[in-house]
Amino acid sequence: MGVEQEVSMKPFKRLMDRKTALRIIAENLERIDRVEKVPLEEASGRVLASDAVAAFNVPPFDRCAMDGYGVKAQDTFGATGFNPKRLKVIGEQHAGEVFQGEIGDGECIQVATGSPLPGGADSVVMVEYTKLDGEYVEIQSPVYPNANVSPEGADIKTGDAVVKAGEVLSPAKVGALAALNIQSVEVYEKPKVAIYSTGSEIRPLGVDLEPGQIYDVNSYTLSTVISRNGCIPVRKGIVVDEREAIESAVREASGYDLGVFSGGSSVGTRDLFAETVEGLGEVLFHGLQVKPGKPTLFGLVEGTAIFGMPGYPTSCLSNAYVFLAPALRKLAGAPPSEPRTVTVRMGKRVVSSSGREQFLTVAVEDGVAYPVFKKSGDITSMANADGYIILPVNLDVVEEGEEVTVILL
Amino acid sequence: MGVEQEVSMKPFKRLMDRKTALRIIAENLERIDRVEKVPLEEASGRVLASDAVAAFNVPPFDRCAMDGYGVKAQDTFGATGFNPKRLKVIGEQHAGEVFQGEIGDGECIQVATGSPLPGGADSVVMVEYTKLDGEYVEIQSPVYPNANVSPEGADIKTGDAVVKAGEVLSPAKVGALAALNIQSVEVYEKPKVAIYSTGSEIRPLGVDLEPGQIYDVNSYTLSTVISRNGCIPVRKGIVVDEREAIESAVREASGYDLGVFSGGSSVGTRDLFAETVEGLGEVLFHGLQVKPGKPTLFGLVEGTAIFGMPGYPTSCLSNAYVFLAPALRKLAGAPPSEPRTVTVRMGKRVVSSSGREQFLTVAVEDGVAYPVFKKSGDITSMANADGYIILPVNLDVVEEGEEVTVILL
Repeated sequence: MGVEQEVSMKPFKRLMDRKTALRIIAENLERIDRVEKVPLEEASGRVLASDAVAAFNVPPFDRCAMDGYGVKAQDTFGATGFNPKRLKVIGEQHAGEVFQGEIGDGECIQVATGSPLPGGADSVVMVEYTKLDGEYVEIQSPVYPNANVSPEGADIKTGDAVVKAGEVLSPAKVGALAALNIQSVEVYEKPKVAIYSTGSEIRPLGVDLEPGQIYDVNSYTLSTVISRNGCIPVRKGIVVDEREAIESAVREASGYDLGVFSGGSSVGTRDLFAETVEGLGEVLFHGLQVKPGKPTLFGLVEGTAIFGMPGYPTSCLSNAYVFLAPALRKLAGAPPSEPRTVTVRMGKRVVSSSGREQFLTVAVEDGVAYPVFKKSGDITSMANADGYIILPVNLDVVEEGEEVTVILL
Repeated sequence: MGVEQEVSMKPFKRLMDRKTALRIIAENLERIDRVEKVPLEEASGRVLASDAVAAFNVPPFDRCAMDGYGVKAQDTFGATGFNPKRLKVIGEQHAGEVFQGEIGDGECIQVATGSPLPGGADSVVMVEYTKLDGEYVEIQSPVYPNANVSPEGADIKTGDAVVKAGEVLSPAKVGALAALNIQSVEVYEKPKVAIYSTGSEIRPLGVDLEPGQIYDVNSYTLSTVISRNGCIPVRKGIVVDEREAIESAVREASGYDLGVFSGGSSVGTRDLFAETVEGLGEVLFHGLQVKPGKPTLFGLVEGTAIFGMPGYPTSCLSNAYVFLAPALRKLAGAPPSEPRTVTVRMGKRVVSSSGREQFLTVAVEDGVAYPVFKKSGDITSMANADGYIILPVNLDVVEEGEEVTVILL
């Protein structure tokens, strides 16, 4: 009680808006530099650290792009269904085989998709436009030179950087690397993120609760968000609300790529977290103009970004989606995630007069959004939600039937 | 050559439209029944196999929802900034602590967010509306009973099925389970999907290519799509285009939850795959009215669904997104994936007259979509794409500047 208490219980003074907060986060984080080599089978979703350069052409030979007949195009000129051209079939060639020899004028070779263009041929007539007649085939439609042929190197040329450093390996990019016989790739390591739950009332799962205690929720939700955004969660356990414990945890966190604390950044008497970050480094913002999620802190200690998330599970998770996820992606070198959205009508009138930008969780049923938000303390406010809508600072009412954009979770 | 060849080279007769094909796939697949227990830390994204029922209330006690003072509401009635009510502060209570005793009339206790409502108190006055003055606090605004209190069980009640069987564990649902001290959950096993690349020209990575040969791309792209959709890819290698080899592979695949073959379902001479599936089971469709991806087969062998995907990497991957992914999600018990889309303008005129529904890959730059599709043989057609647009069967032209919806990859 007394003076010290009055200071530590002071309410937030200036609340920072979301966009400014996101800009500050982005400006103070960089992709980590460490790289590792992983087998191609495990490379999906990872961020390439050096250009993958083609050591040979793909396709590695002029390739038949259709099932049919490899021909000299000029032998087909003028062919029609009524007036087909007859060519002698001098052989066949399946995929993976190479016909030894060359076709002459008036000759052709039966080819399968993917097989090399036979010597002497310059084009392929699709089987659909042919009719086999003993040793001959009737060509019912003309082709131009190079028709239905994928020339050597048309897909990838020797020396092409087919996937560039900094790109995320999609299924197709993994495929492009496979086509080039690249069996392992150099990728950026996944950033390691230390997670702490602060608060003397927080207990680990598995123990019995004493009166006034609750189980640790945030380290589980945060771990999930962290791994879904390309980083490795390292759950460091629970930190009691005492100066030494918090200071020691913040110091430890500064040895990771990022430290995330939940709880302890509100304005309660024992909220020593902000003072600790200020003492060991720098607080870049404390207090956001968003609801839920006001008591959020972002700072730097020894060059490592430290997040102080709200203790309430819903507030913590909501801000993890909005503020932590972009930070994680920046550290990992992944591009910002495009949200999945649906545009639906509001099923119920909502009144909001918080003076803050509000993230309102909703369930979407049959194309209609219904609010599921109860209180920021309630984990079910998000567990039962399909997504959320953003109500601007100065919007007080969303009418029933009004169109809203739901950002899906 | 001769009769047998004419039969096996017959073109596709009836091409099936996408929606009918998706319906047939959905009707012939069921979620697998096998379950396993996993620790909560590893449960994110998994499908719960049995209801998670609350064994206790959350919060487990009447909880202060704000920092401030626990009071009897009637002691605050009439309080204003000019005319505050003075209450005696008889103690303080941090989160995790329980004040032993009760407040009497005219008394209050300093409380922190998350701490239990003190005995005798029925509401909390936010610290923002108070001013401490020695042993007393001035209350500047009245509260009603239960104000700023989360009653015991308000979030989750004992016996509630907080997450239901069949639901996918989102970060918030993982958090709800943590709040309930649920340390491991019963989830459906991930379906095991056998992957085969067929074709005598296909070679595994690491070997030197002979003329006419290419590296196996599809087993890598398919593995990636399979693991991203909640299943376990089992890469079974390359199957040569010979009846015995294909038959043996299809039989083996029928022992998995799903079998995916690429190549070998086109109309080339050695395309024995369809005959094999027909012989061992049933072909439900063969040939799709989509571009790329026409030569796609779906069948059942010994109750196991078998996909025959096109051999061309782009066609194979395109159809993996459109047809295989929903099948994988159905097997895994996951809901259909909501696509992420952006609406942009076309940067270039596109002419299409395929008579098939066309998936046109595009790159999106500064809000404008540019086609990147080259040929269906070209893996870079997808590796360089941000997404694709769907051109309906009868649409021939998309004009430059026209608005299109891009489904992001």
